[in-house]
Amino acid sequence: MTQNKQATVFVRLKDGVLDPQGVTIQKALAQMGYDEFTSVRTGKFFELQIDAGAEDIDRKIDEVCSKLLANPVIETFEVKK
Amino acid sequence: MTQNKQATVFVRLKDGVLDPQGVTIQKALAQMGYDEFTSVRTGKFFELQIDAGAEDIDRKIDEVCSKLLANPVIETFEVKK
Repeated sequence: MTQNKQATVFVRLKDGVLDPQGVTIQKALAQMGYDEFTSVRTGKFFELQIDAGAEDIDRKIDEVCSKLLANPVIETFEVKK
Repeated sequence: MTQNKQATVFVRLKDGVLDPQGVTIQKALAQMGYDEFTSVRTGKFFELQIDAGAEDIDRKIDEVCSKLLANPVIETFEVKK
């Protein structure tokens, strides 16, 4: 019996790209008294369930990352299976 | 010389909580012809830089997760260092 596969795609802003959400969180933490957190960067991830019979899946994951899940201009992505 | 520490907090919706963003992405992928992706769940992560001199940091990370980074009613969090 074949099992469904899973892959997780992590998307983060490229180094040097401003992360206003992260800056806001860091400031909020400092105001709450947690000034030991000197920097916060945010990112997102997607847990993909993949049909067991799917072929050529590595290429397809790369394609959907570039086309839909990440913006290659400002973001990088990393796939973990 | 002490080095700054880093921790990453992963926040995901609890099982059973509807993830409209994930559903939308899955439908978009199917429309683009990628129907091997049967389910998509989304999440976010936060990369925290921590001052090298910080004390009792595990407790503080748990606190900021519960208070600011995650909504414990519908989300779970996981800390990796």
